[in-house]
Amino acid sequence: MADQPEFRRVAVIGVGLIGGSFGMALRNRGLADEVVGVGRNEGRLQRAVELGAVDSWTLDLREGVTGADLVYFATPVGMVIDFMTQALPFVAADCIITDAGSTKAEICACADELVGDRAMFVGGHPMAGSEEAGVEAAGGDLFEGTTYVLTPTSATRPEAVEKMRHVAQGIGARVLVMDPGAHDKCVAVISHFPHLMAAALVLLAEQESERNPHLFDLVAGSFRDMTRVAGSPPILWRDICMSNVNAVSEAASEFGRLVDQAVELMQAGDARSLEDWFAGAKSVRDSIYRGDG
Amino acid sequence: MADQPEFRRVAVIGVGLIGGSFGMALRNRGLADEVVGVGRNEGRLQRAVELGAVDSWTLDLREGVTGADLVYFATPVGMVIDFMTQALPFVAADCIITDAGSTKAEICACADELVGDRAMFVGGHPMAGSEEAGVEAAGGDLFEGTTYVLTPTSATRPEAVEKMRHVAQGIGARVLVMDPGAHDKCVAVISHFPHLMAAALVLLAEQESERNPHLFDLVAGSFRDMTRVAGSPPILWRDICMSNVNAVSEAASEFGRLVDQAVELMQAGDARSLEDWFAGAKSVRDSIYRGDG
Repeated sequence: MADQPEFRRVAVIGVGLIGGSFGMALRNRGLADEVVGVGRNEGRLQRAVELGAVDSWTLDLREGVTGADLVYFATPVGMVIDFMTQALPFVAADCIITDAGSTKAEICACADELVGDRAMFVGGHPMAGSEEAGVEAAGGDLFEGTTYVLTPTSATRPEAVEKMRHVAQGIGARVLVMDPGAHDKCVAVISHFPHLMAAALVLLAEQESERNPHLFDLVAGSFRDMTRVAGSPPILWRDICMSNVNAVSEAASEFGRLVDQAVELMQAGDARSLEDWFAGAKSVRDSIYRGDG
Repeated sequence: MADQPEFRRVAVIGVGLIGGSFGMALRNRGLADEVVGVGRNEGRLQRAVELGAVDSWTLDLREGVTGADLVYFATPVGMVIDFMTQALPFVAADCIITDAGSTKAEICACADELVGDRAMFVGGHPMAGSEEAGVEAAGGDLFEGTTYVLTPTSATRPEAVEKMRHVAQGIGARVLVMDPGAHDKCVAVISHFPHLMAAALVLLAEQESERNPHLFDLVAGSFRDMTRVAGSPPILWRDICMSNVNAVSEAASEFGRLVDQAVELMQAGDARSLEDWFAGAKSVRDSIYRGDG
């Protein structure tokens, strides 16, 4: 069976950077007989065909998912459950349903409840790019060497996990199986809260610039690097943060505690402990990025 | 007088990235007859000669500054005043003394008090690189297109400002004259506190990774960018933060207030206001870096 494609018909709901790249990767590697894109904008869907992201497209969710053996939700995180609700009456019982949303606990809980035995749901999060950069930025190699997280729950059918593991590996990713809540705590710390930090740092600089108009003449590389993600789409990060509010709030409060530690050492004139504090961070950072960061 | 060099003899105290680059820039552009490096490590000073950063070197501060018409302190910020105290008995009354320290209020207040009429001091801060990356990284074009801040006080002689303005422009920088305290508030916001943030974010991730060991398998570009400066030398940032403790503490507390705003909106489910909060940051960020950030 090695030459058989993994899927007959894959429906990609939301053909942006992630959905488009997933479609391209499947098509390039012969992992699906047919990839159909479902969206709301004809021009963008037509462009997805031209770019090789999908074989065909439709505006009609029912038409798109009918006959599919994989339905891949790559919409912004706030819309996954809505679209899944609309699609569910038309999917087959042996169809695998997954999503690429940036937070998992809420989506997995809702999807488990919603899908039940009517299909086979497993949550996923490819750690590559963000959802709204558009199909123009898509590429069939986007997942190469990245981590693809799968978040099964007690309700998840093992064959859904195995099938998704196989396809994620097939498109070049490493698969990591995690609890949805653990996933959300991790991404709150390494991605969601940092986006919020970047925005807060920009707002802090703007406030100070009202008193000191020369401030922006002084910005250097560190500020540019640390605020880069503050240029991301506001709606995207609003939705991601709101879908992960508990973990992001916890990260914010724990971060505040760590900053307070350093400020107290500084104010106490405790140079030795402050150096240790910075050195501790440097040693962790150096161990994550050995010379390439 | 157009062909006359700006200075006869320049003593550079601390021949690292900044001091070495300053020496190279002066020599390449014929702005000084002679540049002498003063430091504590023979091997590094000899290397500075080989790289063209200085004409000669000495371990003896007295020998270095004697006969100089510009003494340029490019040591780590915590050592500027100590070295200035040692050098002062040997400098001429018409000598210009400046420093390249990352914070200015404390250094300028101490230097004004120390120097008085015994020479002509003006504080400076070239917004280019950091002090400890070493002479190997130095280059005569380091200041090209950068901002060179001068921070005169009521005690500063105007001719010191004009002479330093001229030499800073001569090495390719834009000159910005600022009050030392205003400078420190700006750099606290755009550089010093961000370094502390980067370190705190790394420590936060490490804490979370103790509960969720897969955390570091999930890190993506945003985390790498935002923590890059956490790899900087701990001693350097310890000293910089401690020399700017008030402004850094204020920045930390104001930053905490901005984060709290966002967290409250998130927890209240106020999607509209949270989107505005992110959009406000994006619009400021986009206006600073138009498409190149």
